[in-house]
Amino acid sequence: MTPTDAFEELCHQAREIALLESIGELLGWDERTYMPPAAGEYRAEQMAFLSGLIHQRRTDPRLGALLEELAASPLAQDPHSDEGTTIRELRRQYDKQVKLPRSLVEELTRASVLGQQAWVQARQDNDYRLFAPHAEKIFHLKRQQAACLGYADHPYDALLDDYEPAARTAEVAKVLDALRQELVPLVGAIMQSGRTAPVGILQREYPLAAQEAFGKTAAAAIGFDFTRGRLDTTHHPFCAGLGPRDCRITTRYDERFFNTAFFGILHEAGHGIYDQGLRPQWYGLPPGQAVSLGIHESQSRLWENLVGRSRAFWQHFFPQLAGAFPAAVADVTLDAFYWAINHVAPSLIRVEADEATYNLHIVVRFELEQALLKGDLAVGDLPAAWREKYGEYLGVEPHDDADGVLQDIHWSAGLVGYFPTYALGNLYAAQFFEQADRDLGGLDRLIARGEFNPLVEWLRKHIHHPGQRYTAAELVERVTGRPLSHDPLMNHLKRKFAPLYGL
Amino acid sequence: MTPTDAFEELCHQAREIALLESIGELLGWDERTYMPPAAGEYRAEQMAFLSGLIHQRRTDPRLGALLEELAASPLAQDPHSDEGTTIRELRRQYDKQVKLPRSLVEELTRASVLGQQAWVQARQDNDYRLFAPHAEKIFHLKRQQAACLGYADHPYDALLDDYEPAARTAEVAKVLDALRQELVPLVGAIMQSGRTAPVGILQREYPLAAQEAFGKTAAAAIGFDFTRGRLDTTHHPFCAGLGPRDCRITTRYDERFFNTAFFGILHEAGHGIYDQGLRPQWYGLPPGQAVSLGIHESQSRLWENLVGRSRAFWQHFFPQLAGAFPAAVADVTLDAFYWAINHVAPSLIRVEADEATYNLHIVVRFELEQALLKGDLAVGDLPAAWREKYGEYLGVEPHDDADGVLQDIHWSAGLVGYFPTYALGNLYAAQFFEQADRDLGGLDRLIARGEFNPLVEWLRKHIHHPGQRYTAAELVERVTGRPLSHDPLMNHLKRKFAPLYGL
Repeated sequence: MTPTDAFEELCHQAREIALLESIGELLGWDERTYMPPAAGEYRAEQMAFLSGLIHQRRTDPRLGALLEELAASPLAQDPHSDEGTTIRELRRQYDKQVKLPRSLVEELTRASVLGQQAWVQARQDNDYRLFAPHAEKIFHLKRQQAACLGYADHPYDALLDDYEPAARTAEVAKVLDALRQELVPLVGAIMQSGRTAPVGILQREYPLAAQEAFGKTAAAAIGFDFTRGRLDTTHHPFCAGLGPRDCRITTRYDERFFNTAFFGILHEAGHGIYDQGLRPQWYGLPPGQAVSLGIHESQSRLWENLVGRSRAFWQHFFPQLAGAFPAAVADVTLDAFYWAINHVAPSLIRVEADEATYNLHIVVRFELEQALLKGDLAVGDLPAAWREKYGEYLGVEPHDDADGVLQDIHWSAGLVGYFPTYALGNLYAAQFFEQADRDLGGLDRLIARGEFNPLVEWLRKHIHHPGQRYTAAELVERVTGRPLSHDPLMNHLKRKFAPLYGL
Repeated sequence: MTPTDAFEELCHQAREIALLESIGELLGWDERTYMPPAAGEYRAEQMAFLSGLIHQRRTDPRLGALLEELAASPLAQDPHSDEGTTIRELRRQYDKQVKLPRSLVEELTRASVLGQQAWVQARQDNDYRLFAPHAEKIFHLKRQQAACLGYADHPYDALLDDYEPAARTAEVAKVLDALRQELVPLVGAIMQSGRTAPVGILQREYPLAAQEAFGKTAAAAIGFDFTRGRLDTTHHPFCAGLGPRDCRITTRYDERFFNTAFFGILHEAGHGIYDQGLRPQWYGLPPGQAVSLGIHESQSRLWENLVGRSRAFWQHFFPQLAGAFPAAVADVTLDAFYWAINHVAPSLIRVEADEATYNLHIVVRFELEQALLKGDLAVGDLPAAWREKYGEYLGVEPHDDADGVLQDIHWSAGLVGYFPTYALGNLYAAQFFEQADRDLGGLDRLIARGEFNPLVEWLRKHIHHPGQRYTAAELVERVTGRPLSHDPLMNHLKRKFAPLYGL
């Protein structure tokens, strides 16, 4: 068998696995959008069975043999070529997968689907007890998963690697700690400025249908392609890739708060633009896949915050906003609106947090999930620990669990080790944006004219098209000429908030 | 291995196949409801790959060995017990499946998905040429399928058996011919009566949202359970079972014609009530599966026509109708409305045909698809042949192909041999309804009071719960005490139309 033949067979196998995985994405998307309430139990069976099939194929010894054969071939010589990337990344995944027994994979899927369903109910009823047994089960299984995968220092390392390959818990902790040390004085200065943004503007009546139409218009304007995607409604918004030309974003609507749906849509559209920017001919193979969740999040945060919460963006969109919501926005100026959407205040809900306090929400979760995983914290004590950490880091405490420990879907969905990628995403986003701004000679000017395509094309070229040719750390350095740093994010925040709050 | 162990393993395997099949149903449902336009090609790949996996499992030699072992076991002795039914039907399916090569199964799935997508476009553009190459391909593959399966007289027999097990082409032809001989004079008498129903009532403005709400109310009232199901919009309405508690119906709306969505919803809800009435503990196994498409259609036609187009039904629902569509129905009497929805006239569109002419639409398709399959008719000559047959049997000719040969999705979806089950469904429905009427002491009285549950329970007990314990012919005889006959349908039609048209 020539290396070329072996490589073709490898790709064929990986593409078949991708067919199954993309079917799994549809099952998950449907479960969270349209599935009838009584169908959940069987859906968990379908997804568990499918995950077992996928695992079986991912651990097929034939795959191992092909990877072995290709390891020393000329195709693997350049680790950043499409072929080299394919061989390297599939090898890495194979080596991880063979450590996991199929029964554990199926059990984790089943527990995650049922956990999500219980979470929806628990959050609706504000009843942590409905969720607790599922959390017990999930953390128990995640500990097993970490034990199977192995780790040097902390079981959390083994899980984090699924979302941010090659990242280490200790490094992430260091980064987040350093970030926190710069954020706290900034937030303190803002709170002591005596100025308050006119947030009441955002809490007027924003009719649902108009929100949906305006959100879709904005998503399409920044580059999300609706012939290859959709927007639907869900409890906890997400973006799902169901095929090379099928990317679906979701949101939730609050008729008395503008931000929830609109910035949620920009956020998910950012994920979607990344997904739609991957090379379709490499769909299901590493050169056509996202680098990491942190890099994925950098794309959503870039569009949501760096673009969507900029004054330039609203210079362009404010007239359309006024047209879409005449009653709510009639007496509002662009400046007032811009300030309102950039209101800073420690708050309870992560997804609605401002740019300055957001990462503190991540620190809470990052520390708690490590403690849960290690067994230093019992699931029964989690709500109290949550309240305590929020008091300590953000100075606020939830009145109930729905706005506290039950606000996120992640743990119920088996996503442990996922949260820090949100903070990494914020850092990557600011660093990429700074570079794009330099390369394109001033993004504000383009954005204020509604010209989003140059930025999309820049992202396509530098971030989307390479797929997994480089790790997250390598990509950041290649694209921006230096390693990941807090400076771009902190500079951005200071530049934005200093004039608003007279710092 | 004891027979009990073998039976358990057999059921386990069949349930795993059902998991895959139900996932395939989701792929199909999504493709026809929400999938973004550009995603079709990959969806065809997903479905083809899945159908290959399913075929592989359906033809697993282990399944053959288990069935062999169980054939002579005590569990197989009573062919109408749940166990005997399981063994008998899985054997029958296995023997058919092993005759089909996986490549043909995958190719048929791919061609069907792409065919459906081409059909949507061809119908929209009224351009038969977009559809013709797909029809060529599909009939070519269906001929191959028939050759693999084998047949005594006509290749059509081999295909018909997929939809109406044990039925034979010659017998169906005889039944349809006999039916036609009684229908033609009835339709003739109606046309010569000089009376015309006030159909203009139905062509007023019926706002879409109100149609959807009213249709859902009616579907829920007759027994469709929305906690275990949904209603969505599509091009060519269908009902799909995605799990033991997940049955989805679909419809399409015409704001200027009441019947399209409303009777479509009742029709699909009838399918759904059957699906929801199957025993969930036998989901994916013959005792929990529908007998045949003809029996399935009997349930949809029963609710659509025997119930939904009865005067009693509208005695109950007319006030609600008037409330839902005040502008359209303000000046309309119950009698006028009842006559309007029972307007008889030869027409072009099958799904909107009245009860008297409907089966003539089936005869056209039944004859044409036999000719196409045999090669007596070329795909290129189909539109002309269609027009000719419509002229001959119904006295009307379509102006264009969209309202002619392109009106149905079936051939594009690879469903050849499916149409006659619609006519069989009408016959079964009338015979079941007549019996239920006798058993329940007059259905009109119950229906006029909005009491649908006794009829649902009767159907549950006699038709739904037995699953595949009996063949269609056996079931009809068991439930009604005599073999299938035209009399109940003809009696129903005469009873209904004689007073309306003064016959």
